[in-house]
Amino acid sequence: NSHFNSPSMASMSTAFPKTTPFLSHPLAKSDSLIATTVSFPSSSRSRSLRRATLRVRSALIEPDGGKLMELVVPEPRRREKKHEAADLPRVKLTAIDLQWMHVLSEGWASPLRGFMREAEFLQTLHFNSLRLDDGSVVNMSVPIVLAIDDEQKALIGESKRVALVDSDDNPIAILSDIEIYKHPKEERIARTWGTTAPGLPYAEEAITNAGNWLIGGDLEVLEPVKYNDGLDRFRLSPFELRKELEKRGADAVFAFQLRNPVHNGHALLMTDTRRRLLEMGYKNPILLLHPLGGFTKADDVPLSWRMKQHEKVLEDGVLDPETTVVSIFPSPMLYAGPTEVQWHAKARINAGANFYIVGRDPAGMGHPVEKRDLYDADHGKKVLSMAPGLERLNILPFRVAAYDKTQGKMAFFDPSRAQDFLFISGTKMRGLAKNKESPPDGFMCPGGWKVLVDYYDSLSLSGNARLLEKVPV
Amino acid sequence: NSHFNSPSMASMSTAFPKTTPFLSHPLAKSDSLIATTVSFPSSSRSRSLRRATLRVRSALIEPDGGKLMELVVPEPRRREKKHEAADLPRVKLTAIDLQWMHVLSEGWASPLRGFMREAEFLQTLHFNSLRLDDGSVVNMSVPIVLAIDDEQKALIGESKRVALVDSDDNPIAILSDIEIYKHPKEERIARTWGTTAPGLPYAEEAITNAGNWLIGGDLEVLEPVKYNDGLDRFRLSPFELRKELEKRGADAVFAFQLRNPVHNGHALLMTDTRRRLLEMGYKNPILLLHPLGGFTKADDVPLSWRMKQHEKVLEDGVLDPETTVVSIFPSPMLYAGPTEVQWHAKARINAGANFYIVGRDPAGMGHPVEKRDLYDADHGKKVLSMAPGLERLNILPFRVAAYDKTQGKMAFFDPSRAQDFLFISGTKMRGLAKNKESPPDGFMCPGGWKVLVDYYDSLSLSGNARLLEKVPV
Repeated sequence: NSHFNSPSMASMSTAFPKTTPFLSHPLAKSDSLIATTVSFPSSSRSRSLRRATLRVRSALIEPDGGKLMELVVPEPRRREKKHEAADLPRVKLTAIDLQWMHVLSEGWASPLRGFMREAEFLQTLHFNSLRLDDGSVVNMSVPIVLAIDDEQKALIGESKRVALVDSDDNPIAILSDIEIYKHPKEERIARTWGTTAPGLPYAEEAITNAGNWLIGGDLEVLEPVKYNDGLDRFRLSPFELRKELEKRGADAVFAFQLRNPVHNGHALLMTDTRRRLLEMGYKNPILLLHPLGGFTKADDVPLSWRMKQHEKVLEDGVLDPETTVVSIFPSPMLYAGPTEVQWHAKARINAGANFYIVGRDPAGMGHPVEKRDLYDADHGKKVLSMAPGLERLNILPFRVAAYDKTQGKMAFFDPSRAQDFLFISGTKMRGLAKNKESPPDGFMCPGGWKVLVDYYDSLSLSGNARLLEKVPV
Repeated sequence: NSHFNSPSMASMSTAFPKTTPFLSHPLAKSDSLIATTVSFPSSSRSRSLRRATLRVRSALIEPDGGKLMELVVPEPRRREKKHEAADLPRVKLTAIDLQWMHVLSEGWASPLRGFMREAEFLQTLHFNSLRLDDGSVVNMSVPIVLAIDDEQKALIGESKRVALVDSDDNPIAILSDIEIYKHPKEERIARTWGTTAPGLPYAEEAITNAGNWLIGGDLEVLEPVKYNDGLDRFRLSPFELRKELEKRGADAVFAFQLRNPVHNGHALLMTDTRRRLLEMGYKNPILLLHPLGGFTKADDVPLSWRMKQHEKVLEDGVLDPETTVVSIFPSPMLYAGPTEVQWHAKARINAGANFYIVGRDPAGMGHPVEKRDLYDADHGKKVLSMAPGLERLNILPFRVAAYDKTQGKMAFFDPSRAQDFLFISGTKMRGLAKNKESPPDGFMCPGGWKVLVDYYDSLSLSGNARLLEKVPV
């Protein structure tokens, strides 16, 4: 298949060393990009690029706010901090709270220094962005907040600090200089999702029954977050990803967010993106294949199975391990469409990505009550392209890929011969795998497809709707 | 009453000439303001003032985008434009559509040039702001959109222009270079109000039953909008207000938005604001007393009665006509709290105001279903103070005024002797007036109170819940 780069010894090499030297003159690169923008449809905005040339200091894009906020206590101070935490009022975290704590601790949400105080929460809800002290603006579209109930609030009393504890009551973090404020649940849901219909997976899991108060403050996490589920080696922090990308000599990093199995349509657009970046003059564009690792809805394929499937896709040579970094993005999934896609993009800036691939209806889902998609399929990429604080990021909209019956493979949809194409939705794909039917040849590599079939087998064997997920210890 | 400036020949002098020369060095003024910020609690942000010093070119604050968008066709071209309009597909406007057309035609929403296209609509919903071509950002928090139904869309067909017609089918405007896009009603309501509960007055009047499409484009209005209700002389456009403020030699303009009768608590804070501006070094601060003139909910006091009441307040010397401009703000009322207060403030920038007074729960109302206020009473001023595009505006938060029983007048609430104060809500005030009971002496000037009593008398006489309102001819 001419679209695929040379398959070789395939493995999920998250730390594959390269000797390509790092470009020392990224500004010249940006200039050449401006010059070639015409051949790259609606992808890069010259305005943002001009800004980038003023701001880039290292070869990788700068984190939001200029500094990656790493909030894990350094080793030498952990003993002392654990002692402090032992005496503080306690707030018990849910599994989703822990995922957000993980996100915050590694700086995905930089420049946030902890769970949001009210000023940050309100700016997020109303403006999807935060104004920093120097007047600059960073994107921040989803609330990263911690809910507590009346009883917890009473226990905290006048304390200015609390300990965050896991399900076994072990202190895992300290929240300092705290602020407790009302949790306006209905308003939070309405402004984040653009609906208050019952049945939004994240809202039902983490908001509707959560406490009536939010607690914000500065976060210090006592140990790096680990899940001990065999996948921790794929959970590279933004700092680790930046180190890896620098080691590989990336001069462009394009991120692909996903929460579904990879099929050959995805692969086509990732390899095609790399081709276009090379055409623009980049020498070593690296793909950050970045499956979401936190909370997902019950009928999504669980992380462990998705990771197996991604591994097969690399083994089968569909994507080139030499130019691909596979890593897990620890955020929970909100299914909040145009609001959430900004978060997905912003977090990847912090991990070093300066190109972001956006598809049809990103982070979307069906309306929980009405028979329609919750979001207009085009709103995600439109909102993303206009979002405050993302001007530095180059947005790469998908061309739609579908199964081309005449070629027997996934190809970019050609409206002039629409009858030749077959669209296979996620729902249809899952249906086929459940019934052990095969998709058309060339839809997905056989190894990857087998993982999906095995997953649905395991479900019918165990009778479980969902595999259990582990939480950090 | 020491809080009131010298009453004199009282009238609603919207065009009272002053000889005070215009300040030619507003920058020095801004500097002195920075120096005195300490004595003006949480009111002016030095950051915004610093920006202002870089941007101010004339003595009055610049309109958003640098230029007031006046969209009424100049006299010499009206004949020709009317001819053109006669042959175009027609879109009939509702009373609220007409009010928005009025708003747009005079530049209150500058730099908008007409009803929003989708890119503007999406930025408004998600970011409460618009990014201009030069990269600068202006505030825009409420959608100014025009809905059409399937039938109207079919009639428009491929035309790039439509005529907007009044209830008698007379063309009153042309919309050019049109864009028709989906009207996501639920999402629009959720993101604007932070709820989708039934019973939101504006949503029920103008959204829920409106068409499934929105039509945006460049607006040309064929004649200045008039309502012929005896109040047109108070409907000064931003251009006319700026002329009036310049004529009076204003070196600071502080706007007060209201949709209720003025009581002595309001008057106290307006006169106190003037006192504080004088203390800051301004020589001639002018109050823009700016009642909202468009759609209001059924139990609000109608505009004509409010204007009578405001007239009495000036006649009774509660406010000084020499330093007060009374004018009508033509916008409909959304009751959208923190989202709407930004619109109220932004529109006043375009009319020349550089100070904006904001109270408790601005543009708020009770939750339509639950037994609570729809918005946190403090969110309005917090959101306003952080809103993108309003950095140039100085936000003046209310101190709470209440009836001080020991002094027998409205005074700033003193929490150390809370028991001395009586809070009289709008609901309570309306209840008293309906039942022809008197409020405590000093709550409102007697002339103003009589207007309120007369209004409720007229209601019970006519049996109508609401006086009919006229629409432009």
